[in-house]
Amino acid sequence: MTANDGLQRTLERIPLTRAMGLAVEGFDGEAFALAAPLAPNVNDKGCAFGGSLASLMTLAGWGLLELALEARALHADIYVQDSSIRYLAPVWHDFRAIATAAPGESLDAFAAALAERGKARMRVHGRVPLPDGGDAATLEARFVAIARR
Amino acid sequence: MTANDGLQRTLERIPLTRAMGLAVEGFDGEAFALAAPLAPNVNDKGCAFGGSLASLMTLAGWGLLELALEARALHADIYVQDSSIRYLAPVWHDFRAIATAAPGESLDAFAAALAERGKARMRVHGRVPLPDGGDAATLEARFVAIARR
Repeated sequence: MTANDGLQRTLERIPLTRAMGLAVEGFDGEAFALAAPLAPNVNDKGCAFGGSLASLMTLAGWGLLELALEARALHADIYVQDSSIRYLAPVWHDFRAIATAAPGESLDAFAAALAERGKARMRVHGRVPLPDGGDAATLEARFVAIARR
Repeated sequence: MTANDGLQRTLERIPLTRAMGLAVEGFDGEAFALAAPLAPNVNDKGCAFGGSLASLMTLAGWGLLELALEARALHADIYVQDSSIRYLAPVWHDFRAIATAAPGESLDAFAAALAERGKARMRVHGRVPLPDGGDAATLEARFVAIARR
């Protein structure tokens, strides 16, 4: 089982992410992407529900850190502490969220801090891209990881 | 049909809010509250999923403005523009979100601006209270209303 399979299974254990139809797209060492179909995620206007955009970006950030630690054989509980979200344009199609380290942050430094101190914080950037190249929504979120003994 | 019934129906038309089991608690002219049962909103750790807390607070803010305008016989499409969320404590029970005007804001001024200019913005404060009186999560969000012609 690859790390992606484990994350997909975790997402399927959460009732709401199962209802959202989330699918792990992949992790390339720097970016992690999650996909969602529009149909189960529409609002009353027929475009993507803001709660789905926010959840998908937050979960993409969480998944990024989960997989980055797993790739370094580190095990921690990871929690979101705070986030800022901007809703920029409606989404009328299936969508995906991509999470990366926020500017000035690094997955290596995050993992090193966790290994050394048993606790580490990191800011993550998330976005839901539009087909034309812009963003439908963006997220800046701060996560904390606490090592599992 | 009261305004609360209309809002409850709208929430039941959105697949994800139906999956969350949301229920309108009420609007007293200043605060609007929405309730959610824990079971459909758990994460993989057995406490409330962050996406559910964020969605509930954002929807409470949206509902506050919907009902405030409806009470003044104004009709508008209301969208969330941005939000800041803090996750402060895990939630191990059924929960509710309460939305009010953010400090320095007023529902009367918001409605007056909409009536005069056809467009208005307002910042809303949201919280998920804990049984002991503290907050499990807080939200500051900015909404825009555009009058329906």
